[in-house]
Amino acid sequence: MEKLTVVKVGGKIVEEEQSLRQLLADFKSISGNKILVHGGGRSATTIAAKLGIETQMVDGRRITDKAMLDVVTMVYAGLVNKNIVAGLQAMGCNAVGFCGADMDIIRSVKRPVKEIDYGFVGDVVDVNTDELQLLVEQGVTPVMAPLTHDGKGQLLNTNADTIASELAVGLARDFDVNLVYCFEKDGVLSDPDDDNSIIHELNMELYREYKADGSIAAGMIPKLDNSFKALSNGVKSVVITNANNLTKSSVKRTVISF
Amino acid sequence: MEKLTVVKVGGKIVEEEQSLRQLLADFKSISGNKILVHGGGRSATTIAAKLGIETQMVDGRRITDKAMLDVVTMVYAGLVNKNIVAGLQAMGCNAVGFCGADMDIIRSVKRPVKEIDYGFVGDVVDVNTDELQLLVEQGVTPVMAPLTHDGKGQLLNTNADTIASELAVGLARDFDVNLVYCFEKDGVLSDPDDDNSIIHELNMELYREYKADGSIAAGMIPKLDNSFKALSNGVKSVVITNANNLTKSSVKRTVISF
Repeated sequence: MEKLTVVKVGGKIVEEEQSLRQLLADFKSISGNKILVHGGGRSATTIAAKLGIETQMVDGRRITDKAMLDVVTMVYAGLVNKNIVAGLQAMGCNAVGFCGADMDIIRSVKRPVKEIDYGFVGDVVDVNTDELQLLVEQGVTPVMAPLTHDGKGQLLNTNADTIASELAVGLARDFDVNLVYCFEKDGVLSDPDDDNSIIHELNMELYREYKADGSIAAGMIPKLDNSFKALSNGVKSVVITNANNLTKSSVKRTVISF
Repeated sequence: MEKLTVVKVGGKIVEEEQSLRQLLADFKSISGNKILVHGGGRSATTIAAKLGIETQMVDGRRITDKAMLDVVTMVYAGLVNKNIVAGLQAMGCNAVGFCGADMDIIRSVKRPVKEIDYGFVGDVVDVNTDELQLLVEQGVTPVMAPLTHDGKGQLLNTNADTIASELAVGLARDFDVNLVYCFEKDGVLSDPDDDNSIIHELNMELYREYKADGSIAAGMIPKLDNSFKALSNGVKSVVITNANNLTKSSVKRTVISF
């Protein structure tokens, strides 16, 4: 099978022109088939504020009422996504921007209200990569915005880490998929206060130990759960690292394995 | 060759939920391959105003400075485009949203400054429908937002009528293309003040006469020039009508021919 690299980058790096340009150049230089999944992050907050819409976060997750859904749809699927596409095209990378509603790629359900009403936030229920696979085989590079739909006309704000792992799993039937999560640290840290405490290889057993003794930061747990889920569903490898390390051959990073 | 219908709808109809829903149902019921090209219109003006950005129009064309370009990118390629896609998906139509930067479909140049500086407005120079054709053949329905790119990373605001005719021409090599311009009247009027003065068939000779005696409204001239250009470049038929007439078999409309 051919290789496919799915790279997820967070909001911060796509917000500034300088860091975005560097990221796109690094991403472009990854050889072979690839997909970029981006967050949106603070630019949505900034634009919401200008529109007089207050941003509410609970545990780092955005509460998405109707007005905020319109903002993230504009910012993620419009401003951020299309500028990334145009930037990659300028580098000779034949990019195409999607959200989960496009070609019914990712279907989700509105998150049930328990203690917290997250509003128009989607939990993924179905991934359809048929047309995506066709396009990748034509040399096209998809760029995914973190929005999905419920199949009844409703767009839903969806966690970009989850979108990356769901796509990686969906495409693992047809490609040898390598999933790369980029974030602001060089890798998963055993001591959240020490940037040098990178765990270079993290397997399930170690992960359980680190979780039990509390040495892995709470914010990392959804990302790591996504990583192990991806591995157990056919994804070949998962790497967590800083976007700056994307193309360096010998780098600081965490390789996840069973 | 298979049939393909390219439908262009203006801003007004996609702005209100009721009229948009009706339009999507009508569009969905068109049999065979189809593409929807949408404008953005006044919702961009409304959102720009909320963001404190003033809208400047010259002869019905939007002056697009950097701030306004960001607004139209958000509104056209994000809010409007993805809500149309989700709406069509809900009706069982496998839609996908694009702008001209995606898969390098439409490349343009920033309009040269003459008497008026239109800002980040693009004049189309190249249309590439290879991947679009592939997707249409898979039963996918593209939905195009009126933005293009210059191939150097710059998005450009681009007239939706022009995008529709350029796509129609580009796809005429592979399909029998029918181009339908929807607007607020039932057809081209010989008397702009009389909604019943529909010209049912308009050929080049008649068009020249109507232009010479000033009976066709000035605002119609770019649309008609686009229509005749499309016909002379392989498009099978061009129809100008009200969006409400889209699926009616015997309707008020203007059929353009040589």
